[in-house]
Formats: sequence, C-alpha cells, structure tokens
Amino acid sequence: MPKQVDHRERRETIARALWRVVEQRGIAHASVREVAQEAGISHGAVQHYFATREEMLVFAMDFASEQTALRVAEGIAELGSPPHPRDVLRVMLAEMLPLHPDARATSRMSTAYVLEALHDATIHTRAREGLAHGRRLVEQLVRQAMADGLIGSDRDPATETNLLLTLTGLTPLIELGVIGPQEALAAVDQHLDRLFTSGPGPHPPADA
Amino acid sequence: MPKQVDHRERRETIARALWRVVEQRGIAHASVREVAQEAGISHGAVQHYFATREEMLVFAMDFASEQTALRVAEGIAELGSPPHPRDVLRVMLAEMLPLHPDARATSRMSTAYVLEALHDATIHTRAREGLAHGRRLVEQLVRQAMADGLIGSDRDPATETNLLLTLTGLTPLIELGVIGPQEALAAVDQHLDRLFTSGPGPHPPADA
Repeated sequence: MPKQVDHRERRETIARALWRVVEQRGIAHASVREVAQEAGISHGAVQHYFATREEMLVFAMDFASEQTALRVAEGIAELGSPPHPRDVLRVMLAEMLPLHPDARATSRMSTAYVLEALHDATIHTRAREGLAHGRRLVEQLVRQAMADGLIGSDRDPATETNLLLTLTGLTPLIELGVIGPQEALAAVDQHLDRLFTSGPGPHPPADA
Repeated sequence: MPKQVDHRERRETIARALWRVVEQRGIAHASVREVAQEAGISHGAVQHYFATREEMLVFAMDFASEQTALRVAEGIAELGSPPHPRDVLRVMLAEMLPLHPDARATSRMSTAYVLEALHDATIHTRAREGLAHGRRLVEQLVRQAMADGLIGSDRDPATETNLLLTLTGLTPLIELGVIGPQEALAAVDQHLDRLFTSGPGPHPPADA
C-alpha cells in the first residue's frame, strides 16, 4: 500500500513539473528530459514512472482535470445547500479560466493538449473523451435546471450546453491581457443571467 | 516593382508552408529547417526572406489574419446591401471557426500563436495588438447596431463584444469532433438571435 501511494505521488510530482514546463516554456519543451530536469530527478527515474512521453502527457492532463474537478468541488461546497445550478455553473466556468495560478496551469495544459491531440491519435481519443464527458455533465445540469423550471422550456439543451462551454473562449482574451479578470467574469455572469432568467414568461430586467 | 511582388509572393509561399507544418505537425515543428523542407526551398532561401524564426511566425500570423479578413470580406459582399450587422457578425464568426480547410489552417495557426505568445514577449505584443484590434472592430459594430436600435439599449456593448468573441471557444469542440459544424453554427445563430432580438421592449419568441 505505501509503495502504491509513493508511486502515485511520484507521478503527480512529475505531472506538476510537466505543467510548469508547459506553462512557462510551452508543450514543445515537454520532453522526458526537460520534465525530469524541472522535477529535479533523473531521466531514468521519469522513465520508470512513464514508459513514453505520450503516457506522461496523458497522465498530466488527467491529473489537471482531476485537480480542476477538485477546485470546482471545493467551490461548490462553499455554496448554499442545495446549491443553485447557476452558481454551480459559475464555479465550473470560473475554474476553467486562467484567473489564478492553479487554474492558469491547468488551462494552459488543457489548451496545449488539444493542439497535441491534432497530431497524435491516442491523445485525440483521450482528449475527445474528456471533453465529451465534461460536456455531458454540463448538459445534465442544464436539462435538470430546465426540468426544475429554472431555465426556460423554449431553450434547446444541447445548444445551451455548447454555448456554456464556449465561455472558455474568454481564455485568449485573458491570457493576452486584452480584458481583465473582472470583465471576463462579467461576461460569464451576463451569459448565466440570460440563461437562467429566460423562459416563455415575462423576463425580469437584466442586471447588466 | 516586380521584384517587390516576387519578394512578397515568396514570403507568402513560405507562410503557407508554415501553416501546413503547424496544421499537420504542430508549432513545435515550425522551425526554419522544417518550413524550408515543406516549402521545397533551401534553408538559406528561407533565411533570405526571414532573418529569424520569430519574424517568420509573425509574418505567417499576419498573413493568416489578412486571409481571414479577405474571406470575411468575400462573405459580406454576398450579403444584401447594406448588410444586416447580424449577418456580418455571422460571417466573421463562421470564418474564425475551423469549418473548412482554409479556416482550419488559419484557426490552428492562431491558436498556436497565442500559446507561443505566452513564452515570447515580441509575439505576445503582436498577438495582443492583433486581438485587441479585432475586438475593437466587433465592438464598433455592436455599438453601431445599438445606435440603430438593432440591439437593445439595455445591453452593455463591451460585455456583448466579449461574449461574441468567446464563440471562438467552439473551436476545441469542433476540432475534437465532440460537436459537428451544424451544431456549432446553431450555437452561433442562437447567440446572435438572442443578441439582436433583445431590448427593453417585449421579446419576440426565440426561434431555438
């Protein structure tokens, strides 16, 4: 048992070193050699934990997704009980944007991973499954909110889910400093307000 | 004069070779050597046209933006006269998504460029200026549509502009095959319909 824990911890340490390389130098530098150097361990030690660079990348991305999910779970735990689905979505979206150091590391890892997927069939399959899984979770939430009358029944759940996920498109604007964190969150809030106040009935005034 | 044209043409040929390398192998492979090979010219010939890899990347991105702007202008020319701003925005957004081979090439170039900007100060400045410029164009269009009563006066033009630009966040969903082109365009249309039918007055039913 302690050996297994060690193994897992060592892999996580290497994954975090890979994140730093991706964040600071770009995925082109995420070789076993440079990641080993960043982690302060030998090339051979990294190879003991990951047979290939691809395996290391896949683990680092899975770990990034897990860490993001943990941050989201922590954020949701701070909401009322039961939390309003609007607030749940806001926590999810805010943690997917590069608005603080941990989220920036996982966001950059995620963007680089999608680009890597375009030239690597294994990573493509994994990245596709990961995104499709996340998309299904959001769609379930949207459908439940519609069933509960919190989102108008005139909305198309699949399209609303896609529009929610596109809010991660704020990332380049934030990363290049074209807009600030407050403007990004204002856009997220505006979108959520419109989604949750919609419906066939009369609309309350938008608090833009 | 013909010499200048030749010079420009040669640079464009090299830029297109760079796009293909980025699209098919990733920006990590966009070295002077690999781009020269892809363009079918010598390493020295590329160096004659571009002093550094960075200069080559900046030109390739500027050229991608110009080609996207040309495709947008062609799309707008096919609209009625004067074109409705909703249709203008739809053409702009559709050409920014990887929905056909040319748009895919420029979209991948653009994503890779933003990632490169995070580790290169010169590219960061250029990428930031390019995105800020595009953002201003969209905001002007939004403000004009508001002045013309086509977008509700209760909307915040800066936030609406940011939300329009986030629709490029459909890109990873399309690239990984999680949603198809029709679903992506349905999301764009839904967003535009909601933007242009909004207003302080009664809302017409959404045609979801």
